[in-house]
Amino acid sequence: MTPYEAILGKRDTRAFEARPIPEETLHRIVQAGRMAGSAKALEPVRFVVIESQAQKEALARCGGFTPHLPTAAVVVALVLEPEMGVVGAPLTHFRGPFDAGRAAQNMMIAAWAEGIASCPASMHHAAEAAKVLGLPEGYTVANTIAFGYPAGTDAVRPNRPRRPLEEYVHRERW
Amino acid sequence: MTPYEAILGKRDTRAFEARPIPEETLHRIVQAGRMAGSAKALEPVRFVVIESQAQKEALARCGGFTPHLPTAAVVVALVLEPEMGVVGAPLTHFRGPFDAGRAAQNMMIAAWAEGIASCPASMHHAAEAAKVLGLPEGYTVANTIAFGYPAGTDAVRPNRPRRPLEEYVHRERW
Repeated sequence: MTPYEAILGKRDTRAFEARPIPEETLHRIVQAGRMAGSAKALEPVRFVVIESQAQKEALARCGGFTPHLPTAAVVVALVLEPEMGVVGAPLTHFRGPFDAGRAAQNMMIAAWAEGIASCPASMHHAAEAAKVLGLPEGYTVANTIAFGYPAGTDAVRPNRPRRPLEEYVHRERW
Repeated sequence: MTPYEAILGKRDTRAFEARPIPEETLHRIVQAGRMAGSAKALEPVRFVVIESQAQKEALARCGGFTPHLPTAAVVVALVLEPEMGVVGAPLTHFRGPFDAGRAAQNMMIAAWAEGIASCPASMHHAAEAAKVLGLPEGYTVANTIAFGYPAGTDAVRPNRPRRPLEEYVHRERW
């Protein structure tokens, strides 16, 4: 699988087999996230890797669209350092979540290349999610990603169509 | 190059050759960004693809760390739909920039796999950047990405070391 094939083929998937993810595969996924670049090389993103059923279920209670979290083999919570995820200066505001998105995509593409599907799940109740994860004061959850071997039709379905390219792309100016 | 090799090898690069990026390669880069998933499949990210020197220089005047923008073959501005990039509800606040980060990383990995380097550049003066790009009311620039064939040592330097994995990764809880 070429990088381009992995990028285009990867689809957000919510149906997983019960099969666990081998530790060395999980290591590569996390490593892919760690190696994403960040604004001014500040590396504001941290990961909490969750495999215990109790923690997955506790996190699932912190979001509105999370029924897939407890069925995932692994959930990775992307955590932002203080001042990188809070409402504040416009740049701070963008940078943390943007860098978290870069790290998340690296992990999801690396996983997909090894046959592992994934899907982010927002934490609508961010303060409760921080409590579940035991985050220090000021740290925030940017997002969580569920990883697992895909089950059923989710494994083979074609990707959801996107808006036409002409709507996405403007040249020189809007 | 495997997807994992592309992800680990990709480094943020600011020194570019004057060589242009072929249109079909640019198409694949943009396509990679378009195919990134988004929260609730809202597809809040749009691209403005900039090749004219005047527009690159105008954008460079909107950021604090942008000397590489005018030397890039192509600059892609990632634009967020209204309500997706503004300070507001915590989730809205995270989602837009997070999804922009996912799209940006897809583009940068796809580019790297074809020998093209890249580096984001924040728009510190977001309102001016919106004016340069002619964005409609309410649309915001999440970030810009400079793309080009790497020049000099930036092409071969090893990646900047990251914090140790143990600092990045917690298991089950912080």
